[in-house]
Amino acid sequence: MEVLKDRILKDGKIIDSNILRVDSFLNHQLDISLLSQMADSIYQHYSQKDITKVLTIEASGIPLACFTAQKFNIPCVFAKKHSRKNLPKDVYISQVHSFTHDSLYDIVVNQEYLNQNDRILIIDDFLAHGAALQGLISLIQDSGASLVGVGIAIEKAFQGGGDALREKGLDIYSLARLSSIHPDTGIKFVED
Amino acid sequence: MEVLKDRILKDGKIIDSNILRVDSFLNHQLDISLLSQMADSIYQHYSQKDITKVLTIEASGIPLACFTAQKFNIPCVFAKKHSRKNLPKDVYISQVHSFTHDSLYDIVVNQEYLNQNDRILIIDDFLAHGAALQGLISLIQDSGASLVGVGIAIEKAFQGGGDALREKGLDIYSLARLSSIHPDTGIKFVED
Repeated sequence: MEVLKDRILKDGKIIDSNILRVDSFLNHQLDISLLSQMADSIYQHYSQKDITKVLTIEASGIPLACFTAQKFNIPCVFAKKHSRKNLPKDVYISQVHSFTHDSLYDIVVNQEYLNQNDRILIIDDFLAHGAALQGLISLIQDSGASLVGVGIAIEKAFQGGGDALREKGLDIYSLARLSSIHPDTGIKFVED
Repeated sequence: MEVLKDRILKDGKIIDSNILRVDSFLNHQLDISLLSQMADSIYQHYSQKDITKVLTIEASGIPLACFTAQKFNIPCVFAKKHSRKNLPKDVYISQVHSFTHDSLYDIVVNQEYLNQNDRILIIDDFLAHGAALQGLISLIQDSGASLVGVGIAIEKAFQGGGDALREKGLDIYSLARLSSIHPDTGIKFVED
Protein backbone atom coordinates (compact mmCIF):
# COMPACT_ATOMS: atom_id res chain seq x y z
CA MET A 1 0.00 0.00 0.00
CA GLU A 2 1.85 3.04 -1.31
CA VAL A 3 0.51 5.65 1.10
CA LEU A 4 1.63 3.57 4.09
CA LYS A 5 5.04 2.78 2.58
CA ASP A 6 5.58 6.47 1.85
CA ARG A 7 4.67 7.33 5.43
CA ILE A 8 7.03 4.68 6.81
CA LEU A 9 9.86 6.10 4.71
CA LYS A 10 9.02 9.64 5.83
CA ASP A 11 8.34 9.13 9.55
CA GLY A 12 9.61 5.67 10.52
CA LYS A 13 12.59 5.72 12.86
CA ILE A 14 15.16 2.95 12.58
CA ILE A 15 16.28 1.97 16.08
CA ASP A 16 18.38 -1.01 14.99
CA SER A 17 18.20 -3.72 12.34
CA ASN A 18 15.21 -5.32 14.10
CA ILE A 19 13.23 -2.36 15.42
CA LEU A 20 11.38 0.30 13.44
CA ARG A 21 9.51 2.94 15.43
CA VAL A 22 6.28 4.15 13.84
CA ASP A 23 4.70 5.59 16.94
CA SER A 24 4.20 9.03 15.40
CA PHE A 25 1.33 7.68 13.26
CA LEU A 26 0.52 4.02 13.98
CA ASN A 27 0.81 2.90 17.59
CA HIS A 28 1.09 5.80 20.04
CA GLN A 29 0.00 8.88 18.13
CA LEU A 30 -2.54 7.76 15.54
CA ASP A 31 -3.12 9.24 12.09
CA ILE A 32 -6.83 8.49 11.89
CA SER A 33 -7.18 9.27 8.19
CA LEU A 34 -4.31 6.93 7.31
CA LEU A 35 -5.74 4.18 9.53
CA SER A 36 -9.10 4.54 7.80
CA GLN A 37 -7.45 4.19 4.38
CA MET A 38 -5.59 1.12 5.62
CA ALA A 39 -8.86 -0.37 6.85
CA ASP A 40 -10.37 0.29 3.41
CA SER A 41 -7.62 -1.71 1.75
CA ILE A 42 -8.13 -4.63 4.14
CA TYR A 43 -11.88 -4.44 3.60
CA GLN A 44 -11.43 -4.64 -0.17
CA HIS A 45 -9.25 -7.73 0.21
CA TYR A 46 -11.70 -9.60 2.46
CA SER A 47 -15.09 -8.08 1.57
CA GLN A 48 -16.40 -11.28 -0.12
CA LYS A 49 -15.39 -13.61 2.70
CA ASP A 50 -18.43 -13.36 4.98
CA ILE A 51 -16.38 -12.16 7.96
CA THR A 52 -18.49 -11.97 11.14
CA LYS A 53 -15.96 -10.58 13.63
CA VAL A 54 -12.61 -8.83 13.84
CA LEU A 55 -10.16 -10.10 16.49
CA THR A 56 -7.09 -8.23 17.68
CA ILE A 57 -4.93 -7.92 20.78
CA GLU A 58 -4.49 -4.97 23.11
CA ALA A 59 -3.29 -2.34 22.84
CA SER A 60 -1.81 -1.21 19.53
CA GLY A 61 -3.85 -3.54 17.33
CA ILE A 62 -7.07 -1.90 18.48
CA PRO A 63 -7.15 1.23 16.27
CA LEU A 64 -6.78 -0.57 12.93
CA ALA A 65 -9.10 -3.34 14.12
CA CYS A 66 -11.79 -0.81 15.05
CA PHE A 67 -11.69 0.96 11.70
CA THR A 68 -11.65 -2.36 9.84
CA ALA A 69 -14.68 -3.57 11.81
CA GLN A 70 -16.35 -0.26 10.96
CA LYS A 71 -15.93 -0.95 7.22
CA PHE A 72 -17.45 -4.43 7.59
CA ASN A 73 -20.10 -3.20 10.06
CA ILE A 74 -19.32 -6.08 12.41
CA PRO A 75 -18.13 -6.32 16.04
CA CYS A 76 -14.49 -6.18 17.07
CA VAL A 77 -13.07 -8.22 19.96
CA PHE A 78 -9.72 -7.48 21.51
CA ALA A 79 -7.86 -10.18 23.42
CA LYS A 80 -6.61 -8.99 26.80
CA LYS A 81 -3.16 -9.51 28.23
CA HIS A 82 -3.09 -10.99 31.71
CA SER A 83 -0.63 -12.10 34.28
CA ARG A 84 -1.35 -15.66 35.31
CA LYS A 85 -2.02 -14.75 38.95
CA ASN A 86 -5.15 -12.79 38.09
CA LEU A 87 -6.96 -14.79 35.42
CA PRO A 88 -10.70 -14.34 34.90
CA LYS A 89 -13.04 -17.31 34.51
CA ASP A 90 -14.70 -18.69 31.38
CA VAL A 91 -12.01 -17.53 28.98
CA TYR A 92 -10.06 -18.99 26.11
CA ILE A 93 -6.43 -18.59 27.01
CA SER A 94 -3.15 -18.79 25.14
CA GLN A 95 0.46 -18.11 26.09
CA VAL A 96 2.57 -15.73 23.99
CA HIS A 97 6.32 -15.25 23.99
CA SER A 98 7.37 -11.60 23.77
CA PHE A 99 10.63 -11.32 21.85
CA THR A 100 10.83 -7.62 22.74
CA HIS A 101 10.76 -8.21 26.49
CA ASP A 102 11.92 -11.87 26.45
CA SER A 103 8.98 -12.85 28.63
CA LEU A 104 5.78 -14.87 28.54
CA TYR A 105 2.29 -13.49 28.92
CA ASP A 106 -1.22 -14.87 28.62
CA ILE A 107 -3.87 -13.55 26.30
CA VAL A 108 -7.53 -14.23 26.99
CA VAL A 109 -10.90 -13.81 25.32
CA ASN A 110 -14.17 -14.34 27.14
CA GLN A 111 -15.81 -17.49 25.79
CA GLU A 112 -19.02 -15.56 25.10
CA TYR A 113 -17.35 -13.54 22.36
CA LEU A 114 -15.98 -16.25 20.07
CA ASN A 115 -18.10 -19.16 18.92
CA GLN A 116 -18.23 -21.84 16.25
CA ASN A 117 -20.43 -19.77 13.94
CA ASP A 118 -17.89 -16.95 13.77
CA ARG A 119 -15.73 -16.30 10.72
CA ILE A 120 -12.79 -14.33 12.06
CA LEU A 121 -10.48 -11.74 10.54
CA ILE A 122 -7.41 -11.13 12.74
CA ILE A 123 -5.97 -7.60 12.65
CA ASP A 124 -2.69 -6.39 14.15
CA ASP A 125 -0.28 -3.52 13.68
CA PHE A 126 2.90 -5.62 13.37
CA LEU A 127 3.77 -9.15 12.30
CA ALA A 128 7.33 -10.22 13.08
CA HIS A 129 8.04 -13.71 14.41
CA GLY A 130 4.32 -14.35 14.56
CA ALA A 131 4.13 -15.12 18.27
CA ALA A 132 1.12 -12.91 19.04
CA LEU A 133 -0.60 -14.06 15.85
CA GLN A 134 -0.14 -17.72 16.78
CA GLY A 135 -1.61 -16.97 20.20
CA LEU A 136 -4.70 -15.45 18.59
CA ILE A 137 -4.99 -18.40 16.18
CA SER A 138 -4.90 -20.75 19.17
CA LEU A 139 -7.78 -18.86 20.83
CA ILE A 140 -9.82 -19.15 17.63
CA GLN A 141 -9.11 -22.88 17.36
CA ASP A 142 -10.19 -23.41 20.97
CA SER A 143 -13.47 -21.63 20.29
CA GLY A 144 -14.35 -23.65 17.18
CA ALA A 145 -14.62 -20.46 15.09
CA SER A 146 -13.22 -20.30 11.56
CA LEU A 147 -10.14 -18.22 10.84
CA VAL A 148 -10.65 -16.59 7.44
CA GLY A 149 -7.57 -14.40 7.21
CA VAL A 150 -5.22 -11.90 8.74
CA GLY A 151 -4.76 -8.18 8.04
CA ILE A 152 -1.46 -6.61 9.12
CA ALA A 153 -0.23 -3.04 8.90
CA ILE A 154 3.54 -3.72 8.81
CA GLU A 155 5.10 -7.13 8.34
CA LYS A 156 8.78 -7.53 9.20
CA ALA A 157 9.13 -10.13 6.47
CA PHE A 158 12.81 -10.72 7.27
CA GLN A 159 11.77 -12.24 10.60
CA GLY A 160 9.85 -14.99 8.83
CA GLY A 161 6.71 -15.31 10.91
CA GLY A 162 4.35 -14.40 8.07
CA ASP A 163 5.78 -16.77 5.47
CA ALA A 164 5.86 -19.67 7.93
CA LEU A 165 2.11 -19.24 8.44
CA ARG A 166 1.43 -18.69 4.71
CA GLU A 167 3.09 -22.05 4.04
CA LYS A 168 0.41 -23.58 6.24
CA GLY A 169 -2.24 -22.06 3.96
CA LEU A 170 -3.15 -18.95 5.93
CA ASP A 171 -4.20 -15.84 3.98
CA ILE A 172 -2.12 -12.98 5.43
CA TYR A 173 -2.66 -9.59 3.83
CA SER A 174 0.07 -7.13 4.88
CA LEU A 175 -0.13 -3.51 3.81
CA ALA A 176 3.65 -3.02 3.93
CA ARG A 177 6.27 -5.78 3.99
CA LEU A 178 9.75 -4.86 5.17
CA SER A 179 12.65 -6.85 3.69
CA SER A 180 15.25 -5.06 5.84
CA ILE A 181 15.77 -2.10 8.16
CA HIS A 182 19.25 -0.85 8.93
CA PRO A 183 20.73 2.39 10.27
CA ASP A 184 23.10 2.53 7.25
CA THR A 185 21.05 1.20 4.35
CA GLY A 186 17.64 2.45 5.47
CA ILE A 187 14.25 0.83 5.01
CA LYS A 188 13.68 -1.69 2.20
CA PHE A 189 10.37 -3.24 1.23
CA VAL A 190 9.66 -6.64 -0.28
CA GLU A 191 8.91 -6.00 -3.97
CA ASP A 192 5.24 -6.52 -4.72
CA MET B 1 -27.48 9.34 25.99
CA GLU B 2 -30.53 7.09 25.76
CA VAL B 3 -29.17 4.46 23.37
CA LEU B 4 -26.21 3.83 25.69
CA LYS B 5 -28.35 3.79 28.85
CA ASP B 6 -30.71 1.30 27.21
CA ARG B 7 -27.78 -0.91 26.25
CA ILE B 8 -26.35 -0.76 29.78
CA LEU B 9 -29.73 -1.82 31.20
CA LYS B 10 -30.00 -4.63 28.63
CA ASP B 11 -26.45 -6.03 28.63
CA GLY B 12 -24.63 -4.62 31.66
CA LYS B 13 -23.78 -7.23 34.29
CA ILE B 14 -23.74 -6.17 37.92
CA ILE B 15 -20.82 -7.87 39.65
CA ASP B 16 -21.22 -6.03 42.96
CA SER B 17 -22.21 -2.55 44.11
CA ASN B 18 -18.98 -1.11 42.65
CA ILE B 19 -18.44 -3.10 39.47
CA LEU B 20 -20.56 -3.13 36.31
CA ARG B 21 -19.35 -5.32 33.46
CA VAL B 22 -20.02 -3.94 30.00
CA ASP B 23 -17.49 -6.00 28.11
CA SER B 24 -20.05 -7.40 25.68
CA PHE B 25 -20.24 -4.04 23.89
CA LEU B 26 -17.79 -1.46 25.30
CA ASN B 27 -14.41 -2.77 26.43
CA HIS B 28 -13.72 -6.31 25.25
CA GLN B 29 -16.22 -7.04 22.49
CA LEU B 30 -16.98 -3.71 20.80
CA ASP B 31 -20.26 -2.63 19.24
CA ILE B 32 -18.78 -0.40 16.55
CA SER B 33 -22.05 1.22 15.56
CA LEU B 34 -22.82 2.17 19.16
CA LEU B 35 -19.30 3.54 19.66
CA SER B 36 -19.67 5.66 16.54
CA GLN B 37 -22.95 7.09 17.84
CA MET B 38 -21.29 7.82 21.18
CA ALA B 39 -18.46 9.61 19.37
CA ASP B 40 -21.06 11.66 17.48
CA SER B 41 -22.56 12.84 20.75
CA ILE B 42 -19.15 13.84 22.13
CA TYR B 43 -18.34 15.59 18.87
CA GLN B 44 -21.54 17.62 19.06
CA HIS B 45 -20.70 18.71 22.61
CA TYR B 46 -17.15 19.85 21.78
CA SER B 47 -17.32 20.69 18.06
CA GLN B 48 -16.89 24.47 18.60
CA LYS B 49 -13.92 24.15 20.96
CA ASP B 50 -11.03 24.00 18.44
CA ILE B 51 -9.82 20.64 19.72
CA THR B 52 -6.51 19.64 18.11
CA LYS B 53 -5.93 16.21 19.63
CA VAL B 54 -7.72 13.41 21.47
CA LEU B 55 -5.85 11.84 24.40
CA THR B 56 -6.76 8.51 26.01
CA ILE B 57 -5.09 5.66 27.88
CA GLU B 58 -4.56 2.10 26.79
CA ALA B 59 -6.35 -0.17 26.30
CA SER B 60 -10.10 0.21 26.66
CA GLY B 61 -10.21 3.97 26.10
CA ILE B 62 -8.80 3.53 22.59
CA PRO B 63 -11.93 2.54 20.63
CA LEU B 64 -14.07 5.51 21.69
CA ALA B 65 -11.06 7.83 21.38
CA CYS B 66 -10.42 6.65 17.81
CA PHE B 67 -13.99 7.18 16.67
CA THR B 68 -14.13 10.56 18.39
CA ALA B 69 -10.90 11.64 16.68
CA GLN B 70 -12.40 10.45 13.39
CA LYS B 71 -15.37 12.83 13.85
CA PHE B 72 -13.04 15.76 14.54
CA ASN B 73 -10.55 14.65 11.84
CA ILE B 74 -7.65 15.09 14.25
CA PRO B 75 -4.96 12.75 15.66
CA CYS B 76 -5.47 10.54 18.70
CA VAL B 77 -2.71 9.81 21.21
CA PHE B 78 -2.96 7.00 23.73
CA ALA B 79 -0.89 7.07 26.89
CA LYS B 80 0.95 3.82 27.53
CA LYS B 81 1.13 1.93 30.79
CA HIS B 82 4.62 1.05 31.93
CA SER B 83 6.34 -0.63 34.78
CA ARG B 84 8.96 1.68 36.26
CA LYS B 85 11.83 -0.68 35.47
CA ASN B 86 11.41 -0.32 31.72
CA LEU B 87 10.71 3.37 31.10
CA PRO B 88 11.43 4.92 27.71
CA LYS B 89 13.20 8.28 27.40
CA ASP B 90 11.80 11.69 26.52
CA VAL B 91 8.34 11.04 27.92
CA TYR B 92 5.88 12.85 30.13
CA ILE B 93 5.15 10.51 33.01
CA SER B 94 2.51 10.28 35.69
CA GLN B 95 1.71 7.75 38.38
CA VAL B 96 -1.79 6.29 38.65
CA HIS B 97 -3.36 4.34 41.52
CA SER B 98 -5.46 1.41 40.33
CA PHE B 99 -8.35 0.87 42.76
CA THR B 100 -9.26 -2.36 40.92
CA HIS B 101 -5.87 -3.97 41.47
CA ASP B 102 -4.77 -1.84 44.46
CA SER B 103 -1.50 -1.08 42.74
CA LEU B 104 0.44 1.79 41.20
CA TYR B 105 1.41 2.07 37.56
CA ASP B 106 3.04 4.72 35.40
CA ILE B 107 1.50 6.20 32.28
CA VAL B 108 3.67 7.87 29.69
CA VAL B 109 3.33 9.92 26.52
CA ASN B 110 6.23 10.69 24.24
CA GLN B 111 7.03 14.39 24.51
CA GLU B 112 6.81 14.74 20.72
CA TYR B 113 3.07 14.10 20.77
CA LEU B 114 1.85 16.72 23.24
CA ASN B 115 2.86 20.35 23.01
CA GLN B 116 1.85 23.79 24.17
CA ASN B 117 -0.15 24.51 21.02
CA ASP B 118 -2.43 21.51 21.57
CA ARG B 119 -6.00 21.82 22.76
CA ILE B 120 -6.78 18.42 24.23
CA LEU B 121 -9.97 16.41 24.60
CA ILE B 122 -9.50 13.46 26.97
CA ILE B 123 -11.61 10.37 26.21
CA ASP B 124 -12.06 7.27 28.38
CA ASP B 125 -14.53 4.45 28.75
CA PHE B 126 -15.04 4.77 32.53
CA LEU B 127 -14.74 7.51 35.13
CA ALA B 128 -14.92 6.34 38.73
CA HIS B 129 -12.58 7.81 41.35
CA GLY B 130 -10.84 9.77 38.60
CA ALA B 131 -7.36 8.36 39.18
CA ALA B 132 -6.59 7.61 35.52
CA LEU B 133 -8.13 10.93 34.49
CA GLN B 134 -5.97 12.86 36.95
CA GLY B 135 -2.93 11.05 35.57
CA LEU B 136 -3.80 12.17 32.05
CA ILE B 137 -4.43 15.73 33.26
CA SER B 138 -0.99 15.73 34.87
CA LEU B 139 0.63 14.70 31.56
CA ILE B 140 -1.17 17.53 29.78
CA GLN B 141 -0.06 20.06 32.41
CA ASP B 142 3.55 18.91 32.08
CA SER B 143 3.39 19.40 28.31
CA GLY B 144 1.99 22.92 28.47
CA ALA B 145 -0.99 21.91 26.32
CA SER B 146 -4.50 23.14 27.13
CA LEU B 147 -7.09 20.74 28.49
CA VAL B 148 -10.42 21.66 26.90
CA GLY B 149 -12.65 18.91 28.21
CA VAL B 150 -13.30 15.27 28.92
CA GLY B 151 -15.63 12.80 27.19
CA ILE B 152 -16.58 9.68 29.14
CA ALA B 153 -18.73 6.70 28.18
CA ILE B 154 -19.86 5.64 31.66
CA GLU B 155 -19.37 7.69 34.82
CA LYS B 156 -19.80 5.92 38.15
CA ALA B 157 -21.09 9.16 39.67
CA PHE B 158 -21.49 7.57 43.12
CA GLN B 159 -17.70 7.26 43.36
CA GLY B 160 -17.33 11.01 43.12
CA GLY B 161 -14.31 11.44 40.85
CA GLY B 162 -16.22 13.35 38.19
CA ASP B 163 -17.90 15.87 40.48
CA ALA B 164 -14.64 16.57 42.32
CA LEU B 165 -13.05 17.59 39.02
CA ARG B 166 -16.15 19.52 37.87
CA GLU B 167 -15.85 21.59 41.05
CA LYS B 168 -12.42 22.64 39.83
CA GLY B 169 -14.03 23.92 36.63
CA LEU B 170 -13.37 21.00 34.30
CA ASP B 171 -15.95 20.29 31.56
CA ILE B 172 -16.70 16.56 31.84
CA TYR B 173 -19.28 15.24 29.40
CA SER B 174 -20.42 11.73 30.39
CA LEU B 175 -22.80 9.80 28.13
CA ALA B 176 -24.24 7.77 31.01
CA ARG B 177 -23.97 8.61 34.71
CA LEU B 178 -24.64 5.82 37.18
CA SER B 179 -26.06 6.83 40.57
CA SER B 180 -25.96 3.25 41.89
CA ILE B 181 -25.48 -0.37 40.87
CA HIS B 182 -26.62 -3.16 43.12
CA PRO B 183 -27.42 -6.85 42.68
CA ASP B 184 -30.84 -6.32 44.32
CA THR B 185 -31.96 -2.90 43.15
CA GLY B 186 -30.33 -2.96 39.72
CA ILE B 187 -28.80 -0.10 37.75
CA LYS B 188 -29.86 3.50 38.46
CA PHE B 189 -28.84 6.57 36.51
CA VAL B 190 -28.40 10.15 37.66
CA GLU B 191 -31.44 12.05 36.38
CA ASP B 192 -30.54 14.41 33.56
